[in-house]
Amino acid sequence: MVITPINGIDDTDGTGDASHPLIPHLGDPVALTRALCDIPSESGQEGALADAVFETLEHLSARGPGLQIHRDGDAVVARTQLGRAERVVIAGHLDTVPIQGNVPARWESDAAGEQILVARGACDMKAGVAMQLSVLHRVPEPSRDVTLVFYDHEEVAAELNGLRRLAERQPDLLQGDFAVLGEPTSAGIEGGCNGTMRVEVRTTGVRAHSARAWKGVNAIHAAAPVLQRLAEFEAPAVEVDGLVFQESLSAVGIRGGVAGNVIPDECVVTVNYRFAPHWDASRAETFLREFFAGWEVTVTDAAEGARPGLDVPAAADFVRAIGGTPAAKVGWTDVARFSALGIPAVNFGPGDPLFAHKEDEHVRPGEIHRAVEALCSWLEDA
Amino acid sequence: MVITPINGIDDTDGTGDASHPLIPHLGDPVALTRALCDIPSESGQEGALADAVFETLEHLSARGPGLQIHRDGDAVVARTQLGRAERVVIAGHLDTVPIQGNVPARWESDAAGEQILVARGACDMKAGVAMQLSVLHRVPEPSRDVTLVFYDHEEVAAELNGLRRLAERQPDLLQGDFAVLGEPTSAGIEGGCNGTMRVEVRTTGVRAHSARAWKGVNAIHAAAPVLQRLAEFEAPAVEVDGLVFQESLSAVGIRGGVAGNVIPDECVVTVNYRFAPHWDASRAETFLREFFAGWEVTVTDAAEGARPGLDVPAAADFVRAIGGTPAAKVGWTDVARFSALGIPAVNFGPGDPLFAHKEDEHVRPGEIHRAVEALCSWLEDA
Repeated sequence: MVITPINGIDDTDGTGDASHPLIPHLGDPVALTRALCDIPSESGQEGALADAVFETLEHLSARGPGLQIHRDGDAVVARTQLGRAERVVIAGHLDTVPIQGNVPARWESDAAGEQILVARGACDMKAGVAMQLSVLHRVPEPSRDVTLVFYDHEEVAAELNGLRRLAERQPDLLQGDFAVLGEPTSAGIEGGCNGTMRVEVRTTGVRAHSARAWKGVNAIHAAAPVLQRLAEFEAPAVEVDGLVFQESLSAVGIRGGVAGNVIPDECVVTVNYRFAPHWDASRAETFLREFFAGWEVTVTDAAEGARPGLDVPAAADFVRAIGGTPAAKVGWTDVARFSALGIPAVNFGPGDPLFAHKEDEHVRPGEIHRAVEALCSWLEDA
Repeated sequence: MVITPINGIDDTDGTGDASHPLIPHLGDPVALTRALCDIPSESGQEGALADAVFETLEHLSARGPGLQIHRDGDAVVARTQLGRAERVVIAGHLDTVPIQGNVPARWESDAAGEQILVARGACDMKAGVAMQLSVLHRVPEPSRDVTLVFYDHEEVAAELNGLRRLAERQPDLLQGDFAVLGEPTSAGIEGGCNGTMRVEVRTTGVRAHSARAWKGVNAIHAAAPVLQRLAEFEAPAVEVDGLVFQESLSAVGIRGGVAGNVIPDECVVTVNYRFAPHWDASRAETFLREFFAGWEVTVTDAAEGARPGLDVPAAADFVRAIGGTPAAKVGWTDVARFSALGIPAVNFGPGDPLFAHKEDEHVRPGEIHRAVEALCSWLEDA
């Protein structure tokens, strides 16, 4: 097992990479995070960052046992070819939500005087990308074959999502026994995710002039029991593979009304159901149709959740290596795309997710180091 | 008392009016209705019809005891000056809603084989305008002084309404002891009208991502009891001056929702209250604030109703002359503008109001004759 230096810039091999935006920082994951933040990469503009990551992977390939490197648009995939018994995937997205005066990155002190790195993408998820690259830099001959996946368009509409595109075009590139998605989890393991489904629940009536209200049937009044049922429902917490997933059922929109003097003949309540990954979308739809029995229910979109899959050997080893108690991920994330490919997946990355997309988005250096150390320990584990 | 011929065209006085669009038809209120329908007068385009009515009034003035005739935009007012003890106002609007291939007028047979005059404005309210002109033609020296008011922009926004404009600019022209508004009532008396008020009832909450619904407070769920209260409320029927006014309280609009994955922090229900004329707007507002106690209530618009005022002598005589049992008008009409000037007012005109604004709008000749006969009988009454 060869461990490359982790301190300082290691450019003694004469490859001329000293001026590269990322390569000189491979030995310090915090400096690497900052360098990654300083390459703007709002969704749709990931090209420069994808180039820099591709070059960095070529650099790592030249210094290690060799990587198969693929590029698809602004997604990049690198695979070790060590012939190990297991292959693990470590994935992360390159794009960020729009910059709000928070690039380039800057150091600030928090209320407790601790240094924090403030930047767009700092936690979601340039620190995670730094973790991906740092691990392969520090563990060039891991005990499990490693596939690093970097992809574009995670922060925008699902049809643009780079991981979705890769899964459709080149699913073989994503194959593995277990996947880690580097989304921010404060360096704890968050397993699986809830599914999500949106439905429109429609009530109908009969139009009439509101001066003769009794000639009509008011569809908005008819929506009272729909809202009442939602307000009274206590969504369960469901245990799946040892993790507890809190479900929810929420009206996220309501519309109705023709004009200020007309009894409305239609009211539509848009409902978002977040369901634990013991159910697929079909079972969730059945539940909603029973819940709203008597009303017209139309499914407008759905995404299945992901079981945490912590019972596969690579996952169990991962949990042991990271320590702590895994938690259920409440939001839908791209782990579900791995799940759909039959690959158990968890979220694990530095950064507090509550600061994602915020103007004061930031990451703590300690978390970056802790996440990298934990992953390296897992991948060095024989 | 001079009664002018009611059959055929009376142009023997040599005034050269035989080619006028209205004057030759003064003796036949049905032919006059048809002639009025054939002069298009959608709101804002009443000019040609106002000209024709003005000329007809000049014609009537020249043949009778003289009329004071006033014009204000496309509104025309004509007042007899007979020095009678009472003055009655007979008012009607010149405009129609947009034409739908139903001008010029045509004769059709209804299911029972009866002839009906089909045209835009036939019932709302060219037949009423024909009634106004026919009465002065047939009763040039009425037992009560008569003010005929013809006005523009009744079918559009209240701020354009010609009667409102006259009431503001020249209220003296509208003065009288009693007013008849020639809106269609199937030639029955419909007294007064309900008031109308619109309020927005707002529920509030706390935004959160819908994947973490329990971090927020759902404002749409919070609207359930607002709708429930509306659905359960049985609006009373209220007797005012001997007529029964059915009230109503209806949601006419609802809106809420930020995005498909956000717990909404606001939901707004728009409510239309139709209240009997024993209450003014202030009392109606108090009722609504008590009804929706605990929620934010904002009044967006209000128009007070009108008491039927059937106890004044001219009104009592009118009811006696017309016969039948007066009913309460359910919709808000311009009688409320007379009521606001202190003038009791009723709706009375030919035509079934249920066909107003419809593509198959029409009027029955029998109703036109009946309405004219009844008004003439009242105005001949010593």
